[in-house]
Amino acid sequence: MSDPHVVILGGGFGGLAAARALADSPVRVTLLDRQNHHLFQPLLYQVATAGLNPSDISAPIRHLLRHQENVTVLLAEATSIDAAAKTVVLTEGSISYDYLVVATGATHAYFGHDEWASRAPGLKSLEDAVEIRQRFLLAFEAAEREQDPERRKAWLTFVVVGAGPTGVELAGAMYEVARHALKEDFRAINPADARVMLVEGLDRVLPTYSKDLSAAALKSLHERGVEVRLNTRVTRIDDDAVMMGDELVGARTVVWAAGVAASPLGRFLGAPLDRAGRVKVDASLRVPGRPEIFVLGDLASVVQDGAPVPGVAQAALQGGEQTAANIMRSIRAQELAPFRYRDLGSMATIGRNAAVAAIGKAEFTGFFAWLMWLFVHVMALVGFRNRVAVIFSWAWSYVTFNRGSRLITRRVPPTLLSHDEDDDQPGALQTTGDASTAASEKPSAEARSAP
Amino acid sequence: MSDPHVVILGGGFGGLAAARALADSPVRVTLLDRQNHHLFQPLLYQVATAGLNPSDISAPIRHLLRHQENVTVLLAEATSIDAAAKTVVLTEGSISYDYLVVATGATHAYFGHDEWASRAPGLKSLEDAVEIRQRFLLAFEAAEREQDPERRKAWLTFVVVGAGPTGVELAGAMYEVARHALKEDFRAINPADARVMLVEGLDRVLPTYSKDLSAAALKSLHERGVEVRLNTRVTRIDDDAVMMGDELVGARTVVWAAGVAASPLGRFLGAPLDRAGRVKVDASLRVPGRPEIFVLGDLASVVQDGAPVPGVAQAALQGGEQTAANIMRSIRAQELAPFRYRDLGSMATIGRNAAVAAIGKAEFTGFFAWLMWLFVHVMALVGFRNRVAVIFSWAWSYVTFNRGSRLITRRVPPTLLSHDEDDDQPGALQTTGDASTAASEKPSAEARSAP
Repeated sequence: MSDPHVVILGGGFGGLAAARALADSPVRVTLLDRQNHHLFQPLLYQVATAGLNPSDISAPIRHLLRHQENVTVLLAEATSIDAAAKTVVLTEGSISYDYLVVATGATHAYFGHDEWASRAPGLKSLEDAVEIRQRFLLAFEAAEREQDPERRKAWLTFVVVGAGPTGVELAGAMYEVARHALKEDFRAINPADARVMLVEGLDRVLPTYSKDLSAAALKSLHERGVEVRLNTRVTRIDDDAVMMGDELVGARTVVWAAGVAASPLGRFLGAPLDRAGRVKVDASLRVPGRPEIFVLGDLASVVQDGAPVPGVAQAALQGGEQTAANIMRSIRAQELAPFRYRDLGSMATIGRNAAVAAIGKAEFTGFFAWLMWLFVHVMALVGFRNRVAVIFSWAWSYVTFNRGSRLITRRVPPTLLSHDEDDDQPGALQTTGDASTAASEKPSAEARSAP
Repeated sequence: MSDPHVVILGGGFGGLAAARALADSPVRVTLLDRQNHHLFQPLLYQVATAGLNPSDISAPIRHLLRHQENVTVLLAEATSIDAAAKTVVLTEGSISYDYLVVATGATHAYFGHDEWASRAPGLKSLEDAVEIRQRFLLAFEAAEREQDPERRKAWLTFVVVGAGPTGVELAGAMYEVARHALKEDFRAINPADARVMLVEGLDRVLPTYSKDLSAAALKSLHERGVEVRLNTRVTRIDDDAVMMGDELVGARTVVWAAGVAASPLGRFLGAPLDRAGRVKVDASLRVPGRPEIFVLGDLASVVQDGAPVPGVAQAALQGGEQTAANIMRSIRAQELAPFRYRDLGSMATIGRNAAVAAIGKAEFTGFFAWLMWLFVHVMALVGFRNRVAVIFSWAWSYVTFNRGSRLITRRVPPTLLSHDEDDDQPGALQTTGDASTAASEKPSAEARSAP
């Protein structure tokens, strides 16, 4: 008789942890993911702001599991789940299971404004990060060519919607790049004139943190020059402007760091879902009535001590390990253990030398919190090679204020550089602004670039 | 009176060298490129084979020139040149010049078979390299899922067309990756079974090198397991097979490293072109009858001592420096100096510990040539940060046999994983082949993946 077959959907923190925890158990494991790589999502904002390379924060899933002989990794996309037939349907073919672990996570949600997706990309995948990096860097290129002051200002205004950890970290990093890394590179604009705005619907940044840490983070953001709008909702996103509250702000670059929607695979399990589409599981992370299906990580809705377990890497990791143990208990016909999330602490960085961290009841801010953040994230990075590469990149950025990954790899999208052709200013590409960086002998290149 | 305006088209080796050499001269320089980055093309094959990150071999042009105050860098694409009006037409607007340096290089040519472009991408840009890396890595993923032995073989067969330096380096690196870096990662296939074929129409590899070095390179390729077909032309490229000579070889992944076509901008200069579209310039690299237009690098057709100057980085670099000096002579109404290409040597690497190099009359092969290659390429890399990053990546790869950039970032193209649906083998994803790597306890995952 062959060993029971455990199928794991998703190679994120949860799925990978479950596969690893099953290493020496008498089960056959198949891990499916539609990407070939595991992604260290907490550092995605560093790729979006040109600090790290995509490959610094990712590693091929099959490489991570290469020594684990009971695991097969397949690059495949699941389209639905037939729980009655114990089968996962793929875009091609299907795969049957004895135990199923669904760990396909979440994506961003636009609260009924899906038309904003193209104007305000979210940050969940490496593609997202590279897309945002592209837009961020191209905005400075467009501003350098733009001659109309208002339009130039819109190119140099960056709006981040949502002040959770991702939004805070993105806004902080964007401002630092504009202020330091790009400092000397332009002639017509001063990148330090860039305006970074962080918009939050609730009354504080980092709403899931304590009020003290929120206040510390807000102070840090202010000191750095990020403009924070609290109690403010975004109601319109046009090509060149964002309506936030009663204010219409000219801005070309918008990043979405607000809503979360669970993976659509949750809908096929016949289980109740919460408002964000997360699957309401039992105390052992099982689907009610389907004792062979486990759901974990961002896709699971778990309430503990009256509060929802947050959608963070630690919860997914712990859920994966717990699930692996419970599958083995189930095979041995033992009673399953309930899942209990242990909060090991949370932290967010606002920029160079500044972060906030909560560990148990202790809270930290400033430089010390930033060092903690650095240490924890580097140690947690999967794969030693990445760890060294990231330390190197960060040390380099820290010393030089520079960014190593300022690549625009795709062809310039015409819309990003397009403007009206009705203006007629045949002379020079004007070199306004900024006496401090681009120096006195600025060339007035005879570009007839209609503003 | 303002300083003369020098417009440089292209931020490759030639254009960048010209801009740098004009640093302290009383001219205004505008450098245009449609990419934001300068690319170290000789190492592009390392990106295509997952050894280096795109940002390891590239740097933002404006960052490289940030301290040079008489230079403006613009991200823009030139569509034509109006030599009579001394104006370059851009996709938006135009720019006028007193002196024009055209250094827009070359791309690959399919010898009248442009329909091959999608099946057999060339390797000229970072996008090309990432595309080839994608196909290369996905082929192993597809082979892992494929159950039909013939079709699996086609997924594991890689054809490189053209045995110049790029072709030789690509084929060597591909074989090494399959043999070492992917060794333990798969269950159903043994990546070392991959077949790498190098097809050349002439009678030897590296045809521009001496016969001795060609023979040494061929021997190295054979020893490594690359199959070389000389005197063989590719006449058909289908979805799953390549016709080379009289032989039809099942192969899914084809890379084009054969022809070269000069940038189309050369056609607007009113000068005679050679067969590849290169501009026939005078002894000072000027367009005949247009003493204010210089053409250099891969776009220039220069004959020296009866032989054409090769399209290599050194020739572009020297042309750029010479042109900067000649522009200053022209401004001072002095006589221009003729361009003279000095061959500083050429080298190509076949893989780990093996390369061939010619420096003056001296020739080197094997490990010593490889060390020379390593040294020269690392030292030549633009920007100190890249240099350190590349040394690190290479040292890491060398010690671990691993590759750091095995990223598939875009969504899997359906064609790459598609296959007939008529076969019906409901059972296991078969785990054939390869007793040596994936060990005894291979799981027979119950994937119903139609072969």
